[in-house]
Amino acid sequence: MTIKDIAKMCNVGISTVSRAINDDPGINQETKKRILKVIEEQNFVPNKSARNLKMTEAKTIALLIKGTNNPFFQGMLRIFEQELQKVEYSYLVYPVADDQDETAIAMELVQERRLKGIIFLGGLTEVSEVSLDKIGVPCVRCTVSNPSISVGTKDYAVSIDDRKEAYKAVDYLCKCGHKDIAIVCGREDDCSIGRMRQEGYMDALLDHGISYDPQLVLYVKGEVCEFSAQNGYSTVKALLESDKKVTAIFLISDMMAFGAYKAIKEKGLRIPEDISVIGFDGLDLTRFYHPSLTTVRQPCDQMVKASIEVLLGAINDGNTGEQRIFPAELIVRESVRNIE
Amino acid sequence: MTIKDIAKMCNVGISTVSRAINDDPGINQETKKRILKVIEEQNFVPNKSARNLKMTEAKTIALLIKGTNNPFFQGMLRIFEQELQKVEYSYLVYPVADDQDETAIAMELVQERRLKGIIFLGGLTEVSEVSLDKIGVPCVRCTVSNPSISVGTKDYAVSIDDRKEAYKAVDYLCKCGHKDIAIVCGREDDCSIGRMRQEGYMDALLDHGISYDPQLVLYVKGEVCEFSAQNGYSTVKALLESDKKVTAIFLISDMMAFGAYKAIKEKGLRIPEDISVIGFDGLDLTRFYHPSLTTVRQPCDQMVKASIEVLLGAINDGNTGEQRIFPAELIVRESVRNIE
Repeated sequence: MTIKDIAKMCNVGISTVSRAINDDPGINQETKKRILKVIEEQNFVPNKSARNLKMTEAKTIALLIKGTNNPFFQGMLRIFEQELQKVEYSYLVYPVADDQDETAIAMELVQERRLKGIIFLGGLTEVSEVSLDKIGVPCVRCTVSNPSISVGTKDYAVSIDDRKEAYKAVDYLCKCGHKDIAIVCGREDDCSIGRMRQEGYMDALLDHGISYDPQLVLYVKGEVCEFSAQNGYSTVKALLESDKKVTAIFLISDMMAFGAYKAIKEKGLRIPEDISVIGFDGLDLTRFYHPSLTTVRQPCDQMVKASIEVLLGAINDGNTGEQRIFPAELIVRESVRNIE
Repeated sequence: MTIKDIAKMCNVGISTVSRAINDDPGINQETKKRILKVIEEQNFVPNKSARNLKMTEAKTIALLIKGTNNPFFQGMLRIFEQELQKVEYSYLVYPVADDQDETAIAMELVQERRLKGIIFLGGLTEVSEVSLDKIGVPCVRCTVSNPSISVGTKDYAVSIDDRKEAYKAVDYLCKCGHKDIAIVCGREDDCSIGRMRQEGYMDALLDHGISYDPQLVLYVKGEVCEFSAQNGYSTVKALLESDKKVTAIFLISDMMAFGAYKAIKEKGLRIPEDISVIGFDGLDLTRFYHPSLTTVRQPCDQMVKASIEVLLGAINDGNTGEQRIFPAELIVRESVRNIE
């Protein structure tokens, strides 16, 4: 049942049905009554686009999320919800499994659902122009991009500079007098944002004249959910069981920091008296840990708004590829001690 | 571009195109090559249903989630992902805002997206037969239902018995010798699962001969996110600042228990030495708190599988309305002390 069918049944044009639905004054009141009656009888629900001017064109985009179990993306989803409503777009959320290729799924969805655009959350830091061409609608990568790689004419990305922001966290630890600083990274073969955050760690140590100790660079071993509490817990537990001297730990996600809290407290050590901890992302829950977690907060609000703006610019105005990088913020709370 | 267009271009029938795509042996190899070449040239991506027998019928359902910010639903989403893949259904996830009517959205989606069915996560504990009729496809309420209300012929529900399971938590506290037991509920006007869990609390007190003290029944004051860490934190903080004697607190969600941990520790009190805490839901993070949180774990896996089974039974076999109730499990960990 479409607006066309209703028009046919009422023996009027589509625009007249639209006027009846939209309560437009330029319609005969008798005709309007007749149309609304048919609509009610047929249980016809006008779709969102029928309430706008362009009736034949549904304005829908898809959010493809890699890492559905990541509370960080979950928080962003709510902001997308609010912001897309403002621009009168409807949207679908589509979780992508760890082993799935998001560009292949994007191609399929665009065909099946007649989408105007795609936003990728998580996943790829780079995507080929060939893939983007095949998808056929504008795609924005949100939260994942590498500022040191320039984007192509069809590549849109909105993110922080992960390397620079991780630097802030480790620089802060160094300024608090820490020299024996461990980092808990993603998997050793990670070449996405985890790798960039690790580079920021290296940069900060170098600037503070602290020599790099490979034994303090810890990779998680898990197959999946690499930024999870479980991985933070088991990695830090193993570190504390070794004899390695360490006064501070930087975990590249807040979830991993939550796991680290557990490992440290189980060992009978105190945060920050015995070990300082710093996370990354700025999850809301970090405020509710005891001690509250010092972290680097990503500007989710700004990144979501910019992603939508960039996507609409590409859809409506044919804007060429671009990359927008936002600053994150070091949030100093209670989990880092000054040891100088 | 659809399979019909490809068929027209190749001057063959739709079933021949389908055979080419599905690598069916009953097709001339030359014809197959020709079709695949056109498919490649046109960048045509066969949709999932084209790979099954019923080509014209997309098998898609929608998950409508009320409470996108609830990690509990987030965990379930992953299970839906796995299970729907097994039955070769594709799905859309659609977040429903707190103030939106999920049945109205369902009606709209069914029309726009030609869905086979709907699963509601969170939200309504009851839904009228009239609304269900209007939606026009089977709808399963997952995690929300009231076992004491029998379902209509078009009403499908899969959940735990919230009242009985909350009873388990409070019964356990009583058996550990606690008499001054507070409960942190949802808002005072809540008439959904929060209310049922509160009834379970009352039942347990009654059975243990503990008189009911209204001052120990705490409602959250927030407008939104009623089961959040923030609400758990502020409610328990206020309780501890009063002179009210309390040895144990039951929070009707784990997220609220996380907030309670913070309030208790900030006050300089210990868990469980000074105050025992028990949560509800069984979030994965409960294991990573210190002390680990005693909670009631909902059988997410079973509930998801049953929801899909019930929905497919309604879609394919026209099964009549039903309600499936699963038992939850008390997970005894470290946050409750025996004070006898």
